[in-house]
Amino acid sequence: MRIARIETENGAEFAREIDGEWQTAQDPFTGVASGLVGRRIANPRFLAPVEPRVILGMAHNGSPENRSIAPQAFMKSARTAAGPGENVLFDPAIGRVIVEGELAVVVGRNARNLTPHNAMDAVLGYTIGNDVTATDQNALDSFWTQSKNGVNFTPLGPWIETDLDPDDASIQLVVNGSTVAEESTKRLARNISEILVYVTSHVTLGPGDIVLTGCPDTLYQVHPGDSFEISIAGIGTLAGGIESA
Amino acid sequence: MRIARIETENGAEFAREIDGEWQTAQDPFTGVASGLVGRRIANPRFLAPVEPRVILGMAHNGSPENRSIAPQAFMKSARTAAGPGENVLFDPAIGRVIVEGELAVVVGRNARNLTPHNAMDAVLGYTIGNDVTATDQNALDSFWTQSKNGVNFTPLGPWIETDLDPDDASIQLVVNGSTVAEESTKRLARNISEILVYVTSHVTLGPGDIVLTGCPDTLYQVHPGDSFEISIAGIGTLAGGIESA
Repeated sequence: MRIARIETENGAEFAREIDGEWQTAQDPFTGVASGLVGRRIANPRFLAPVEPRVILGMAHNGSPENRSIAPQAFMKSARTAAGPGENVLFDPAIGRVIVEGELAVVVGRNARNLTPHNAMDAVLGYTIGNDVTATDQNALDSFWTQSKNGVNFTPLGPWIETDLDPDDASIQLVVNGSTVAEESTKRLARNISEILVYVTSHVTLGPGDIVLTGCPDTLYQVHPGDSFEISIAGIGTLAGGIESA
Repeated sequence: MRIARIETENGAEFAREIDGEWQTAQDPFTGVASGLVGRRIANPRFLAPVEPRVILGMAHNGSPENRSIAPQAFMKSARTAAGPGENVLFDPAIGRVIVEGELAVVVGRNARNLTPHNAMDAVLGYTIGNDVTATDQNALDSFWTQSKNGVNFTPLGPWIETDLDPDDASIQLVVNGSTVAEESTKRLARNISEILVYVTSHVTLGPGDIVLTGCPDTLYQVHPGDSFEISIAGIGTLAGGIESA
Protein backbone atom coordinates (compact mmCIF):
# COMPACT_ATOMS: atom_id res chain seq x y z
CA MET A 1 0.00 0.00 0.00
CA ARG A 2 1.09 3.55 -0.73
CA ILE A 3 0.51 6.36 1.80
CA ALA A 4 1.22 10.00 0.97
CA ARG A 5 0.80 13.41 2.54
CA ILE A 6 -0.76 15.84 0.10
CA GLU A 7 -1.68 19.49 -0.01
CA THR A 8 -5.45 20.01 -0.08
CA GLU A 9 -7.89 22.80 0.74
CA ASN A 10 -7.66 21.56 4.36
CA GLY A 11 -3.88 21.94 4.45
CA ALA A 12 -1.88 18.73 4.66
CA GLU A 13 -3.87 15.49 4.50
CA PHE A 14 -2.85 11.88 4.31
CA ALA A 15 -3.92 9.92 1.22
CA ARG A 16 -3.81 6.35 -0.06
CA GLU A 17 -3.46 5.03 -3.56
CA ILE A 18 -6.44 2.87 -4.42
CA ASP A 19 -6.79 1.40 -7.93
CA GLY A 20 -4.32 3.94 -9.30
CA GLU A 21 -6.13 6.92 -7.75
CA TRP A 22 -5.26 8.94 -4.66
CA GLN A 23 -7.96 9.23 -2.00
CA THR A 24 -7.80 11.14 1.29
CA ALA A 25 -7.20 8.86 4.27
CA GLN A 26 -6.72 8.81 8.02
CA ASP A 27 -3.37 9.65 9.57
CA PRO A 28 -1.63 6.25 9.57
CA PHE A 29 -0.06 6.98 12.98
CA THR A 30 -3.01 8.39 14.94
CA GLY A 31 -6.05 7.17 12.99
CA VAL A 32 -7.36 10.77 12.89
CA ALA A 33 -8.41 12.31 9.54
CA SER A 34 -7.88 15.99 8.67
CA GLY A 35 -10.91 16.02 6.36
CA LEU A 36 -13.50 13.69 4.86
CA VAL A 37 -11.84 10.35 4.15
CA GLY A 38 -12.15 8.80 0.66
CA ARG A 39 -12.25 12.00 -1.41
CA ARG A 40 -10.53 11.42 -4.72
CA ILE A 41 -7.72 13.93 -5.36
CA ALA A 42 -6.73 14.39 -9.00
CA ASN A 43 -3.16 15.60 -9.61
CA PRO A 44 -2.15 15.56 -5.96
CA ARG A 45 0.67 17.80 -4.78
CA PHE A 46 2.87 15.55 -2.66
CA LEU A 47 4.49 16.80 0.55
CA ALA A 48 7.20 15.08 2.58
CA PRO A 49 5.24 11.94 3.60
CA VAL A 50 5.94 12.49 7.31
CA GLU A 51 6.83 15.31 9.70
CA PRO A 52 9.52 13.51 11.69
CA ARG A 53 10.66 14.47 15.18
CA VAL A 54 13.88 12.49 14.65
CA ILE A 55 15.93 11.93 11.52
CA LEU A 56 18.87 9.58 11.91
CA GLY A 57 21.37 8.55 9.26
CA MET A 58 23.68 5.55 9.26
CA ALA A 59 27.34 6.44 8.74
CA HIS A 60 29.77 4.12 6.89
CA ASN A 61 27.07 1.60 6.01
CA GLY A 62 27.30 1.76 2.22
CA SER A 63 29.44 -1.27 1.41
CA PRO A 64 30.08 -4.80 2.74
CA GLU A 65 33.59 -3.75 3.85
CA ASN A 66 32.01 -1.28 6.33
CA ARG A 67 30.85 -4.27 8.36
CA SER A 68 34.28 -4.40 10.00
CA ILE A 69 33.65 -0.98 11.59
CA ALA A 70 31.28 -0.60 14.57
CA PRO A 71 27.96 0.92 13.47
CA GLN A 72 27.39 4.65 14.00
CA ALA A 73 24.43 6.93 13.42
CA PHE A 74 24.32 10.73 13.09
CA MET A 75 21.36 13.00 13.71
CA LYS A 76 19.92 15.49 11.21
CA SER A 77 17.59 18.29 12.26
CA ALA A 78 13.91 17.45 11.76
CA ARG A 79 13.68 20.88 10.13
CA THR A 80 15.80 19.65 7.17
CA ALA A 81 12.90 17.47 5.94
CA ALA A 82 11.67 18.66 2.51
CA GLY A 83 9.05 17.44 0.08
CA PRO A 84 9.21 16.29 -3.54
CA GLY A 85 10.06 19.16 -5.87
CA GLU A 86 11.45 21.40 -3.13
CA ASN A 87 14.88 22.81 -3.83
CA VAL A 88 17.95 22.08 -1.73
CA LEU A 89 19.54 25.45 -0.83
CA PHE A 90 23.15 26.25 -0.06
CA ASP A 91 25.75 28.95 -0.36
CA PRO A 92 28.58 27.61 -2.59
CA ALA A 93 31.03 28.99 0.02
CA ILE A 94 30.16 25.89 2.08
CA GLY A 95 32.33 23.81 -0.29
CA ARG A 96 31.49 20.56 -2.05
CA VAL A 97 27.90 19.30 -1.69
CA ILE A 98 26.68 15.84 -2.67
CA VAL A 99 23.28 14.24 -2.99
CA GLU A 100 22.96 10.73 -1.56
CA GLY A 101 20.08 8.49 -2.67
CA GLU A 102 19.02 6.22 0.19
CA LEU A 103 16.24 3.94 1.33
CA ALA A 104 14.49 5.68 4.25
CA VAL A 105 12.70 3.67 6.93
CA VAL A 106 9.47 5.27 8.19
CA VAL A 107 8.97 4.28 11.82
CA GLY A 108 5.39 3.40 12.76
CA ARG A 109 5.36 3.34 16.54
CA ASN A 110 7.39 4.11 19.65
CA ALA A 111 10.50 1.99 19.55
CA ARG A 112 13.40 1.52 21.99
CA ASN A 113 15.67 -1.52 22.42
CA LEU A 114 14.19 -3.38 19.45
CA THR A 115 15.41 -6.97 19.01
CA PRO A 116 16.07 -9.00 15.84
CA HIS A 117 12.76 -10.68 16.68
CA ASN A 118 10.56 -7.55 16.71
CA ALA A 119 12.55 -4.84 14.86
CA MET A 120 10.59 -5.03 11.61
CA ASP A 121 7.27 -4.70 13.49
CA ALA A 122 8.21 -1.07 14.23
CA VAL A 123 8.34 -0.22 10.50
CA LEU A 124 5.33 1.43 8.86
CA GLY A 125 6.98 1.43 5.43
CA TYR A 126 9.70 2.92 3.26
CA THR A 127 10.26 6.09 1.32
CA ILE A 128 13.11 7.62 -0.65
CA GLY A 129 15.56 9.87 1.18
CA ASN A 130 18.19 12.27 -0.13
CA ASP A 131 20.84 12.70 2.56
CA VAL A 132 22.35 15.93 1.20
CA THR A 133 25.81 16.50 2.68
CA ALA A 134 28.30 19.38 2.51
CA THR A 135 31.28 17.04 2.57
CA ASP A 136 34.07 19.61 3.04
CA GLN A 137 32.48 20.54 6.39
CA ASN A 138 33.15 17.07 7.82
CA ALA A 139 36.84 17.88 8.18
CA LEU A 140 35.87 20.92 10.27
CA ASP A 141 33.22 19.32 12.48
CA SER A 142 33.53 15.76 13.78
CA PHE A 143 29.84 15.76 14.78
CA TRP A 144 28.82 16.42 11.11
CA THR A 145 26.37 19.07 12.37
CA GLN A 146 27.85 21.58 9.90
CA SER A 147 27.63 19.21 6.93
CA LYS A 148 24.15 17.77 7.34
CA ASN A 149 21.78 20.62 8.23
CA GLY A 150 21.52 22.99 5.30
CA VAL A 151 18.10 24.22 4.16
CA ASN A 152 16.03 21.34 2.74
CA PHE A 153 18.99 18.98 3.17
CA THR A 154 16.70 15.94 3.62
CA PRO A 155 14.25 15.61 0.72
CA LEU A 156 11.80 12.75 1.40
CA GLY A 157 9.10 11.12 -0.71
CA PRO A 158 7.17 10.94 -2.85
CA TRP A 159 5.20 8.55 -0.62
CA ILE A 160 5.47 5.63 1.83
CA GLU A 161 5.36 2.10 0.40
CA THR A 162 4.40 -0.48 3.00
CA ASP A 163 5.12 -3.55 0.84
CA LEU A 164 8.79 -3.74 -0.10
CA ASP A 165 11.80 -6.00 0.43
CA PRO A 166 14.09 -3.38 2.00
CA ASP A 167 17.16 -5.62 1.85
CA ASP A 168 17.20 -5.83 -1.95
CA ALA A 169 15.84 -2.56 -3.32
CA SER A 170 17.50 -1.02 -6.36
CA ILE A 171 18.40 2.69 -6.06
CA GLN A 172 19.03 4.79 -9.18
CA LEU A 173 20.43 8.32 -9.04
CA VAL A 174 19.94 10.67 -12.00
CA VAL A 175 21.52 14.14 -12.08
CA ASN A 176 20.62 16.58 -14.85
CA GLY A 177 18.94 13.78 -16.78
CA SER A 178 21.90 11.35 -16.75
CA THR A 179 22.10 8.20 -14.64
CA VAL A 180 25.16 8.65 -12.44
CA ALA A 181 24.77 5.71 -10.04
CA GLU A 182 22.74 2.54 -9.62
CA GLU A 183 23.06 0.07 -6.76
CA SER A 184 21.01 -2.18 -4.48
CA THR A 185 20.46 -1.98 -0.71
CA LYS A 186 21.87 -5.54 -0.81
CA ARG A 187 25.26 -3.78 -0.66
CA LEU A 188 24.58 -2.14 2.73
CA ALA A 189 26.93 -3.34 5.48
CA ARG A 190 24.04 -3.86 7.89
CA ASN A 191 20.50 -4.75 6.88
CA ILE A 192 17.37 -2.90 7.97
CA SER A 193 16.67 -5.09 10.99
CA GLU A 194 20.28 -4.76 12.22
CA ILE A 195 20.15 -0.98 11.74
CA LEU A 196 16.95 -0.67 13.79
CA VAL A 197 18.31 -2.87 16.58
CA TYR A 198 21.49 -0.76 16.76
CA VAL A 199 19.79 2.62 16.53
CA THR A 200 17.07 1.92 19.10
CA SER A 201 19.63 0.62 21.59
CA HIS A 202 20.70 4.27 21.91
CA VAL A 203 17.88 6.50 20.59
CA THR A 204 14.11 6.34 21.12
CA LEU A 205 12.21 6.44 17.83
CA GLY A 206 8.53 7.19 17.36
CA PRO A 207 5.74 7.50 14.80
CA GLY A 208 6.89 9.30 11.65
CA ASP A 209 10.59 9.24 12.46
CA ILE A 210 13.04 8.56 9.65
CA VAL A 211 16.12 6.33 9.52
CA LEU A 212 18.31 6.91 6.47
CA THR A 213 19.90 3.51 5.93
CA GLY A 214 23.15 4.51 4.20
CA CYS A 215 24.35 5.23 0.73
CA PRO A 216 25.59 2.30 -1.40
CA ASP A 217 27.67 4.65 -3.60
CA THR A 218 24.47 6.27 -4.92
CA LEU A 219 25.94 9.76 -4.51
CA TYR A 220 27.06 12.61 -6.75
CA GLN A 221 28.40 16.14 -6.41
CA VAL A 222 25.89 18.86 -7.30
CA HIS A 223 25.91 22.61 -7.94
CA PRO A 224 23.23 25.31 -7.96
CA GLY A 225 21.05 24.87 -11.04
CA ASP A 226 21.32 21.07 -11.06
CA SER A 227 18.37 18.70 -10.77
CA PHE A 228 18.23 15.24 -9.19
CA GLU A 229 15.94 12.23 -9.42
CA ILE A 230 16.29 9.29 -7.06
CA SER A 231 14.29 6.19 -7.97
CA ILE A 232 13.84 3.09 -5.84
CA ALA A 233 12.27 0.06 -7.53
CA GLY A 234 8.91 -0.65 -5.88
CA ILE A 235 8.54 2.87 -4.50
CA GLY A 236 8.87 5.52 -7.23
CA THR A 237 10.93 8.65 -7.92
CA LEU A 238 11.86 11.57 -5.66
CA ALA A 239 12.86 14.64 -7.71
CA GLY A 240 14.13 18.08 -6.80
CA GLY A 241 16.54 20.85 -7.65
CA ILE A 242 19.60 22.59 -6.28
CA GLU A 243 19.53 26.34 -5.70
CA SER A 244 22.02 28.92 -4.47
CA ALA A 245 21.08 30.35 -1.06
CA MET B 1 7.91 37.43 32.54
CA ARG B 2 7.61 33.69 33.27
CA ILE B 3 5.93 31.35 30.79
CA ALA B 4 5.23 27.70 31.61
CA ARG B 5 3.50 24.71 30.07
CA ILE B 6 1.24 23.05 32.59
CA GLU B 7 -0.99 20.00 32.72
CA THR B 8 -4.68 20.94 32.91
CA GLU B 9 -8.01 19.27 32.19
CA ASN B 10 -7.45 20.36 28.55
CA GLY B 11 -4.11 18.57 28.36
CA ALA B 12 -1.04 20.80 28.06
CA GLU B 13 -1.66 24.56 28.26
CA PHE B 14 0.66 27.53 28.43
CA ALA B 15 0.51 29.70 31.52
CA ARG B 16 2.00 32.98 32.77
CA GLU B 17 2.94 34.03 36.25
CA ILE B 18 1.02 37.17 37.21
CA ASP B 19 1.36 38.65 40.71
CA GLY B 20 2.72 35.34 42.01
CA GLU B 21 -0.12 33.27 40.54
CA TRP B 22 -0.18 31.09 37.44
CA GLN B 23 -2.87 31.86 34.85
CA THR B 24 -3.55 30.05 31.58
CA ALA B 25 -2.23 31.95 28.56
CA GLN B 26 -1.90 31.85 24.80
CA ASP B 27 0.82 29.80 23.14
CA PRO B 28 3.72 32.30 23.06
CA PHE B 29 4.79 31.07 19.61
CA THR B 30 1.45 30.89 17.77
CA GLY B 31 -0.83 33.14 19.83
CA VAL B 32 -3.40 30.30 19.97
CA ALA B 33 -4.86 29.25 23.33
CA SER B 34 -5.72 25.63 24.24
CA GLY B 35 -8.47 26.74 26.63
CA LEU B 36 -9.93 29.85 28.22
CA VAL B 37 -7.12 32.34 28.84
CA GLY B 38 -6.66 33.84 32.32
CA ARG B 39 -7.90 30.92 34.41
CA ARG B 40 -6.00 30.79 37.67
CA ILE B 41 -4.31 27.40 38.24
CA ALA B 42 -3.47 26.56 41.85
CA ASN B 43 -0.58 24.09 42.37
CA PRO B 44 0.24 23.78 38.66
CA ARG B 45 1.98 20.63 37.39
CA PHE B 46 4.79 21.92 35.21
CA LEU B 47 5.72 20.16 31.95
CA ALA B 48 8.82 20.75 29.83
CA PRO B 49 8.14 24.40 28.85
CA VAL B 50 8.45 23.66 25.11
CA GLU B 51 8.12 20.74 22.71
CA PRO B 52 11.24 21.41 20.63
CA ARG B 53 11.79 20.10 17.13
CA VAL B 54 15.54 20.71 17.51
CA ILE B 55 17.76 20.45 20.59
CA LEU B 56 21.37 21.52 20.07
CA GLY B 57 24.16 21.50 22.61
CA MET B 58 27.41 23.41 22.53
CA ALA B 59 30.49 21.22 22.93
CA HIS B 60 33.67 22.42 24.69
CA ASN B 61 32.16 25.77 25.65
CA GLY B 62 32.45 25.53 29.43
CA SER B 63 35.59 27.52 30.14
CA PRO B 64 37.46 30.55 28.79
CA GLU B 65 40.28 28.27 27.54
CA ASN B 66 37.80 26.60 25.14
CA ARG B 67 37.78 29.82 23.14
CA SER B 68 40.95 28.66 21.37
CA ILE B 69 39.01 25.73 19.82
CA ALA B 70 36.58 26.28 16.93
CA PRO B 71 32.97 26.13 18.14
CA GLN B 72 31.03 22.88 17.65
CA ALA B 73 27.45 21.87 18.36
CA PHE B 74 25.92 18.41 18.71
CA MET B 75 22.31 17.45 18.22
CA LYS B 76 20.13 15.65 20.77
CA SER B 77 16.88 13.94 19.81
CA ALA B 78 13.80 16.10 20.43
CA ARG B 79 12.36 12.99 22.10
CA THR B 80 14.88 13.32 24.98
CA ALA B 81 13.07 16.43 26.29
CA ALA B 82 11.60 15.75 29.75
CA GLY B 83 9.73 17.87 32.27
CA PRO B 84 10.43 18.84 35.88
CA GLY B 85 10.21 15.84 38.21
CA GLU B 86 10.56 13.26 35.44
CA ASN B 87 13.22 10.65 36.04
CA VAL B 88 16.27 10.18 33.81
CA LEU B 89 16.42 6.48 32.89
CA PHE B 90 19.44 4.38 31.98
CA ASP B 91 20.85 0.90 32.24
CA PRO B 92 24.04 1.06 34.35
CA ALA B 93 25.71 -1.12 31.67
CA ILE B 94 25.98 2.10 29.60
CA GLY B 95 28.87 3.19 31.89
CA ARG B 96 29.39 6.49 33.65
CA VAL B 97 26.52 9.02 33.42
CA ILE B 98 26.74 12.67 34.42
CA VAL B 99 24.18 15.44 34.84
CA GLU B 100 25.18 18.82 33.40
CA GLY B 101 23.39 21.97 34.58
CA GLU B 102 23.18 24.49 31.76
CA LEU B 103 21.41 27.66 30.69
CA ALA B 104 19.04 26.72 27.84
CA VAL B 105 18.05 29.28 25.21
CA VAL B 106 14.40 29.02 24.08
CA VAL B 107 14.19 30.16 20.45
CA GLY B 108 11.18 32.32 19.63
CA ARG B 109 11.05 32.41 15.84
CA ASN B 110 12.55 30.97 12.67
CA ALA B 111 16.23 31.76 12.65
CA ARG B 112 19.00 31.12 10.12
CA ASN B 113 22.21 33.07 9.62
CA LEU B 114 21.66 35.34 12.60
CA THR B 115 24.16 38.18 12.98
CA PRO B 116 25.63 39.80 16.11
CA HIS B 117 23.18 42.62 15.37
CA ASN B 118 19.97 40.55 15.43
CA ALA B 119 20.85 37.28 17.24
CA MET B 120 19.21 38.17 20.54
CA ASP B 121 15.94 39.12 18.78
CA ALA B 122 15.43 35.41 18.04
CA VAL B 123 15.35 34.55 21.75
CA LEU B 124 12.00 34.15 23.52
CA GLY B 125 13.66 33.50 26.88
CA TYR B 126 15.68 31.09 28.97
CA THR B 127 15.06 27.92 30.92
CA ILE B 128 17.20 25.41 32.81
CA GLY B 129 18.54 22.42 30.90
CA ASN B 130 20.12 19.21 32.14
CA ASP B 131 22.33 17.81 29.36
CA VAL B 132 22.55 14.25 30.69
CA THR B 133 25.50 12.43 29.10
CA ALA B 134 26.72 8.83 29.21
CA THR B 135 30.35 9.87 29.02
CA ASP B 136 31.94 6.43 28.48
CA GLN B 137 30.01 6.20 25.20
CA ASN B 138 31.88 9.18 23.73
CA ALA B 139 34.98 7.03 23.24
CA LEU B 140 32.87 4.59 21.20
CA ASP B 141 30.94 7.09 19.07
CA SER B 142 32.53 10.28 17.75
CA PHE B 143 29.07 11.68 16.88
CA TRP B 144 28.02 11.42 20.57
CA THR B 145 24.69 9.91 19.41
CA GLN B 146 25.20 7.01 21.84
CA SER B 147 26.01 9.25 24.82
CA LYS B 148 23.31 11.91 24.51
CA ASN B 149 20.02 10.17 23.73
CA GLY B 150 18.97 8.03 26.66
CA VAL B 151 15.39 8.19 27.93
CA ASN B 152 14.60 11.64 29.42
CA PHE B 153 18.22 12.71 28.87
CA THR B 154 17.24 16.40 28.46
CA PRO B 155 15.19 17.59 31.45
CA LEU B 156 13.98 21.17 30.83
CA GLY B 157 12.15 23.68 32.99
CA PRO B 158 10.52 24.57 35.23
CA TRP B 159 9.50 27.54 33.04
CA ILE B 160 10.79 30.16 30.58
CA GLU B 161 12.07 33.45 32.00
CA THR B 162 12.07 36.22 29.39
CA ASP B 163 13.97 38.80 31.50
CA LEU B 164 17.47 37.57 32.32
CA ASP B 165 21.06 38.54 31.67
CA PRO B 166 22.16 35.26 30.05
CA ASP B 167 25.84 36.17 30.10
CA ASP B 168 26.09 36.31 33.89
CA ALA B 169 23.65 33.81 35.31
CA SER B 170 24.70 31.74 38.32
CA ILE B 171 24.13 27.96 38.00
CA GLN B 172 24.04 25.76 41.11
CA LEU B 173 23.99 21.95 40.95
CA VAL B 174 22.75 19.95 43.95
CA VAL B 175 22.92 16.13 44.00
CA ASN B 176 21.25 14.19 46.82
CA GLY B 177 20.81 17.43 48.75
CA SER B 178 24.45 18.56 48.63
CA THR B 179 25.76 21.41 46.49
CA VAL B 180 28.36 19.84 44.19
CA ALA B 181 29.03 22.73 41.79
CA GLU B 182 28.33 26.44 41.40
CA GLU B 183 29.45 28.63 38.52
CA SER B 184 28.31 31.48 36.29
CA THR B 185 27.61 31.54 32.56
CA LYS B 186 30.27 34.30 32.59
CA ARG B 187 32.72 31.40 32.34
CA LEU B 188 31.37 30.16 28.98
CA ALA B 189 33.89 30.41 26.14
CA ARG B 190 31.35 32.00 23.83
CA ASN B 191 28.44 34.14 24.95
CA ILE B 192 24.80 33.62 23.98
CA SER B 193 24.89 35.92 20.96
CA GLU B 194 28.05 34.27 19.61
CA ILE B 195 26.53 30.82 20.14
CA LEU B 196 23.38 31.74 18.19
CA VAL B 197 25.37 33.30 15.33
CA TYR B 198 27.51 30.14 15.06
CA VAL B 199 24.67 27.63 15.37
CA THR B 200 22.34 29.33 12.89
CA SER B 201 25.11 29.59 10.31
CA HIS B 202 24.70 25.81 9.96
CA VAL B 203 21.31 24.81 11.40
CA THR B 204 17.85 26.37 11.00
CA LEU B 205 16.17 26.97 14.35
CA GLY B 206 12.50 27.66 14.94
CA PRO B 207 9.90 28.42 17.61
CA GLY B 208 10.37 26.28 20.72
CA ASP B 209 13.81 24.95 19.79
CA ILE B 210 16.42 24.64 22.52
CA VAL B 211 20.11 25.54 22.52
CA LEU B 212 22.04 24.16 25.50
CA THR B 213 24.79 26.70 25.96
CA GLY B 214 27.48 24.55 27.58
CA CYS B 215 28.46 23.39 31.03
CA PRO B 216 30.79 25.63 33.10
CA ASP B 217 31.90 22.64 35.24
CA THR B 218 28.36 22.36 36.68
CA LEU B 219 28.41 18.58 36.25
CA TYR B 220 28.44 15.50 38.48
CA GLN B 221 28.33 11.72 38.10
CA VAL B 222 25.01 10.15 39.10
CA HIS B 223 23.64 6.66 39.76
CA PRO B 224 20.15 5.17 39.90
CA GLY B 225 18.40 6.38 43.04
CA ASP B 226 20.10 9.80 43.01
CA SER B 227 18.21 13.11 42.81
CA PHE B 228 19.34 16.37 41.23
CA GLU B 229 18.38 20.02 41.52
CA ILE B 230 19.72 22.64 39.13
CA SER B 231 19.07 26.26 40.07
CA ILE B 232 19.76 29.32 37.94
CA ALA B 233 19.50 32.69 39.66
CA GLY B 234 16.60 34.61 38.12
CA ILE B 235 14.90 31.51 36.76
CA GLY B 236 14.28 28.91 39.50
CA THR B 237 15.02 25.24 40.16
CA LEU B 238 14.73 22.19 37.89
CA ALA B 239 14.55 18.97 39.91
CA GLY B 240 14.41 15.30 38.97
CA GLY B 241 15.63 11.83 39.77
CA ILE B 242 17.75 9.06 38.29
CA GLU B 243 16.25 5.63 37.74
CA SER B 244 17.56 2.32 36.46
CA ALA B 245 16.01 1.36 33.10
